[in-house]
Amino acid sequence: MKYSFTNDYSEGAHEKILEAIVESNRKQSSGYGCDDDCKEAVKKIKRELQYEDCDIHFLVGGTQSNLVVIANALRPHEAVIAVDSGHINVHETGAIEASGHKVIAVASVDGKLTCEELRKAFILHSDEHMVKPKMVYISNATEVGTVYYKQELQELSALCHELGLYLFMDGARLGSALTAKDNDVTLLDICRYTDVFYLGGTKNGALFGEAVVIINKELKKDFRYVMKQRGAMLAKGRLLGIQFDKLFEDRLYFQLAKHANDMAQKLQQCFLKNGYKLYVASTTNQIFPIVDKKIYHQLQKQYEFTKWCDIDFEHYALRLVTSWATPQTAVDEFCAYLTSITVKTDA
Amino acid sequence: MKYSFTNDYSEGAHEKILEAIVESNRKQSSGYGCDDDCKEAVKKIKRELQYEDCDIHFLVGGTQSNLVVIANALRPHEAVIAVDSGHINVHETGAIEASGHKVIAVASVDGKLTCEELRKAFILHSDEHMVKPKMVYISNATEVGTVYYKQELQELSALCHELGLYLFMDGARLGSALTAKDNDVTLLDICRYTDVFYLGGTKNGALFGEAVVIINKELKKDFRYVMKQRGAMLAKGRLLGIQFDKLFEDRLYFQLAKHANDMAQKLQQCFLKNGYKLYVASTTNQIFPIVDKKIYHQLQKQYEFTKWCDIDFEHYALRLVTSWATPQTAVDEFCAYLTSITVKTDA
Amino acid sequence: MKYSFTNDYSEGAHEKILEAIVESNRKQSSGYGCDDDCKEAVKKIKRELQYEDCDIHFLVGGTQSNLVVIANALRPHEAVIAVDSGHINVHETGAIEASGHKVIAVASVDGKLTCEELRKAFILHSDEHMVKPKMVYISNATEVGTVYYKQELQELSALCHELGLYLFMDGARLGSALTAKDNDVTLLDICRYTDVFYLGGTKNGALFGEAVVIINKELKKDFRYVMKQRGAMLAKGRLLGIQFDKLFEDRLYFQLAKHANDMAQKLQQCFLKNGYKLYVASTTNQIFPIVDKKIYHQLQKQYEFTKWCDIDFEHYALRLVTSWATPQTAVDEFCAYLTSITVKTDA
Amino acid sequence: MKYSFTNDYSEGAHEKILEAIVESNRKQSSGYGCDDDCKEAVKKIKRELQYEDCDIHFLVGGTQSNLVVIANALRPHEAVIAVDSGHINVHETGAIEASGHKVIAVASVDGKLTCEELRKAFILHSDEHMVKPKMVYISNATEVGTVYYKQELQELSALCHELGLYLFMDGARLGSALTAKDNDVTLLDICRYTDVFYLGGTKNGALFGEAVVIINKELKKDFRYVMKQRGAMLAKGRLLGIQFDKLFEDRLYFQLAKHANDMAQKLQQCFLKNGYKLYVASTTNQIFPIVDKKIYHQLQKQYEFTKWCDIDFEHYALRLVTSWATPQTAVDEFCAYLTSITVKTDA
Repeated sequence: MKYSFTNDYSEGAHEKILEAIVESNRKQSSGYGCDDDCKEAVKKIKRELQYEDCDIHFLVGGTQSNLVVIANALRPHEAVIAVDSGHINVHETGAIEASGHKVIAVASVDGKLTCEELRKAFILHSDEHMVKPKMVYISNATEVGTVYYKQELQELSALCHELGLYLFMDGARLGSALTAKDNDVTLLDICRYTDVFYLGGTKNGALFGEAVVIINKELKKDFRYVMKQRGAMLAKGRLLGIQFDKLFEDRLYFQLAKHANDMAQKLQQCFLKNGYKLYVASTTNQIFPIVDKKIYHQLQKQYEFTKWCDIDFEHYALRLVTSWATPQTAVDEFCAYLTSITVKTDA
Repeated sequence: MKYSFTNDYSEGAHEKILEAIVESNRKQSSGYGCDDDCKEAVKKIKRELQYEDCDIHFLVGGTQSNLVVIANALRPHEAVIAVDSGHINVHETGAIEASGHKVIAVASVDGKLTCEELRKAFILHSDEHMVKPKMVYISNATEVGTVYYKQELQELSALCHELGLYLFMDGARLGSALTAKDNDVTLLDICRYTDVFYLGGTKNGALFGEAVVIINKELKKDFRYVMKQRGAMLAKGRLLGIQFDKLFEDRLYFQLAKHANDMAQKLQQCFLKNGYKLYVASTTNQIFPIVDKKIYHQLQKQYEFTKWCDIDFEHYALRLVTSWATPQTAVDEFCAYLTSITVKTDA
Repeated sequence: MKYSFTNDYSEGAHEKILEAIVESNRKQSSGYGCDDDCKEAVKKIKRELQYEDCDIHFLVGGTQSNLVVIANALRPHEAVIAVDSGHINVHETGAIEASGHKVIAVASVDGKLTCEELRKAFILHSDEHMVKPKMVYISNATEVGTVYYKQELQELSALCHELGLYLFMDGARLGSALTAKDNDVTLLDICRYTDVFYLGGTKNGALFGEAVVIINKELKKDFRYVMKQRGAMLAKGRLLGIQFDKLFEDRLYFQLAKHANDMAQKLQQCFLKNGYKLYVASTTNQIFPIVDKKIYHQLQKQYEFTKWCDIDFEHYALRLVTSWATPQTAVDEFCAYLTSITVKTDA
Repeated sequence: MKYSFTNDYSEGAHEKILEAIVESNRKQSSGYGCDDDCKEAVKKIKRELQYEDCDIHFLVGGTQSNLVVIANALRPHEAVIAVDSGHINVHETGAIEASGHKVIAVASVDGKLTCEELRKAFILHSDEHMVKPKMVYISNATEVGTVYYKQELQELSALCHELGLYLFMDGARLGSALTAKDNDVTLLDICRYTDVFYLGGTKNGALFGEAVVIINKELKKDFRYVMKQRGAMLAKGRLLGIQFDKLFEDRLYFQLAKHANDMAQKLQQCFLKNGYKLYVASTTNQIFPIVDKKIYHQLQKQYEFTKWCDIDFEHYALRLVTSWATPQTAVDEFCAYLTSITVKTDA
């Protein structure tokens, strides 16, 4: 079987997590997240956030978290603004619309929402014949592997505050963002600048699980009702508690994310060294090199990965993703192979 | 900590399942249920069903399965008929209504839907000013631990067919139903008599997971779209495949369910032997004895369980649930304790 | 063609209304209810209410008003409590569920919601696994022609306040209720005791139109957005303004309603005089006499009306409705006919 | 008061319609569109269509018609493709999303959807992680006053057929389109090329009303249920029947539309004669001239109309709309005024 750089959820969970699950297997506990493991995980996460005044809920997946957070926050006529490549706009089979709300898509710069585009979209929605923007959705890291800088977050946050909008950060890859070499944002910053966000576990060493952190008091009320209604309350909720407890013990969450980033950056370096351009310069665990069709086909023979988009008739942007579990050897072998086929092609 | 008979999801998973998860942990696989483990589990389940012409999808939980199946099946004005104690009518925070559909609640006999009530409800909905019944929802085992007999299913199925209704069986506790001592229904019968049903894993030895089996061709199309839209497609879908693969290997699924039933039946016998009445005579893993307030409070001192309802000013119906993991010793100790307090009270 | 007592929307509008529409036909005005006629109608209604601090919106029909008011008021997991015969529970094709919310149906006394049933339903919904009651829906007059008395409204209102519920009065037949001979409620009372209600026009002399009056500040915000979203904002909104302007000029609204009541009461008297029993004693424009099958069929030969329900194998409850336009002669003729067939039958 | 060219619903209804309403006012008839006037109107419309095998339903307004047609047609994960300026995408407060469906917005040429953009959008939605396009929404006339030509409709229709998409034509201004001087489309063509469309009455001489014509059998079933559920079934449905009966008697519908077009075209000519450019060359009753800010402000002193968009810092595109009721004198006076201020500005 070919080695896969297709995504960051191809493998299971970090072994510390599995061990904890195995160890506690026959212990009885309360259902639906009302157990001691969840309480302990909340405690550990709050310590890491350095922020106490928030509610933390554990959900199973990303689409689920997005739809529950948004359904919980918005009145029927209210809408959420996202960049056009935003996960909720493209890759969730209309989950947000299915809960009744329009996603207002705006152009992005390097996958990021800018204050200019946000203000423009807000102004366009001027009266009761149009939906009313009420929430802003951003992802960190973005869909193209870039990260939001502190000043960008500050400015987006200030603009949201000015316009009466909630700022929601999809953190499916938040570990990756926070451990990127160019990151200057702390978890405490995120608590200060957003109204709600989540710490992704699925893509960072858990079997599954996202920890939704609600900062804004207006969004806290009855959140568990909406979770339950959307089928997002795991019966054996303890499984989520255990996993986040382990992830936030001894900073495992950050070690795993950093490893994934390091592996991706090595791959990106290898592409650059071999003379390839990048579709976007990523600092996290997804990279987007541009190759011609021949290289694309040769890579395909040995590896699994995704074609991101066409650049022109001869060139594609690829997407390669590493994870907490990507072995150094897989990266080294890929680099050797890329170098070998590049030489053959160019010489 | 007190031993709990509160529900059948207090513990983890059968160890064979955990071992398989641990063993395959670093193996890469495709996401979202498109992996070999899911394929293998489907194969094993179909063999057990003795029925090939069905689609099988793995979802995470019961409420999720109910809402996806129903949202997938119904047009906007169509409704689902259920008994008033039905899970979708009472305990899912309006999940079905949140997907736009009315639950038409009708009276039950021993927790079961009767043809008479079904026909009555259907006839009442006579024109376009009312919702149009299109699906019938039943649970097997029911919410009060009873099971549907073959003839009942046959008749319900025939009536549904006559009236143009889909028959949907919630099988969160289907293992328990199929291994009840009075059960005369096979999985093949269920394939023949229903349009869609699911095999519950969460309450029968899995960490989580329900296997939705779609029989009726009309309900098959695009099911995965609706799963994704409702946040019901697990990224590491392989975890569901592994679990059902193990559950349907060597009939583990049935062994676990039978154990739970046996434990509950011992508890029920103990109540009967000590002179208590039953709210309903259950043959599965939930029992509903009637006790007076004194006994209720004495039991509460040593055990966790639920008060089901008031019988009169002096008596309550209790609900005690056993699971695949309930140890024989816990049951024996409970019986000894019950006998001891009964003697004290009655003497 | 047979004369119809089937409903109170068989005829057009009071001629004063038609004249005003004809007269102003070519006058240009702003769309969507932002015109002078609507402003003037609001002014007149507020004067009649003797209550200033409310928002008034004009919608086209009853189902539309119910679904907009409820969709506007509730968060996704919140539900509305109504009596089982309530219009939103039975006769709106699941309009409320289609906007995502459960209707919790409770038993009624003479078509009315009692505090006892309300409290019971509230208490039953105790945790996040169930919908959360947030609104109470009552109709005045009720579906069976009875009216709420001041003390009943006071008590329901106090209980709603205690439990944190909004009280919403469907006033499709409010004119009829307020002019019933046993009514002791004023419009000002309704402003004080409810959070939102509407003054029905469709069933009381308008071509169409319901005036929604929002008392509670929490329900006022962005109401027009939800109207627009549900297709409930009439382009030529002026038509609604004109109609309510005329209805609330010189107390036309109340005269028309009183006429309808008088006609129905004459019919009811005639049934009583001829020895028939009533399914419920109505004081408004719908009556529910009980007749045997023979009489039923003889009445059907000459008149259109509805069979309400079976009383026993031999008897039906009928429903006869009068309107602002029912001529005295039609009532007299019906009474003569009833008397004649009664004699024939009984003699 | 200033004369208004703001929209085509500023005035009431053609007098023939009013007379018919007045005349039939006290006549009793069945509710909800099941009356003789509706039947007669259906007959007349079918004769005009020269197409028998269709269902015709009368709704009150445009947003309502759009949301009912779309909610009726789509399964939960299915989406509708529209140009980005499409009414359902911009001006209906998220009505389509509120019924659960995504509007996929694509670029337009002169306000029209092209086969190229349609195919591109379809291809982009390739798997179950994205919504599934199932319907195409176009408006004729478009939002910028252009009309679809026969070949364009043919090609769109063929492409929809190829891709398994329903083609839905919003005909709020269909009268205007069909009487445009460059129109080459007949009603029969529309019956052949679309699956469902509507004949707008609100903007063409009725008080209100849209006649939805369902061609495709798949879309016919239970349409009235969805109408009722969305509050779109008028109690006194007869009012819709009367209006469409009159509109389709002696070709009144087309005469009224042609008048509106003629008035707008005179305005457009006047702008051109005075040297102004057009944002788009319209052949229907909406025109979009470009003026500089000074002219804009001078026009505003005497007339009501809309600013459509900014062209550059100095120039705006305006939107002027005429109706069936626009008097020739109003147009002449506007032209005289425009000419006068143009001279003053340019000289």
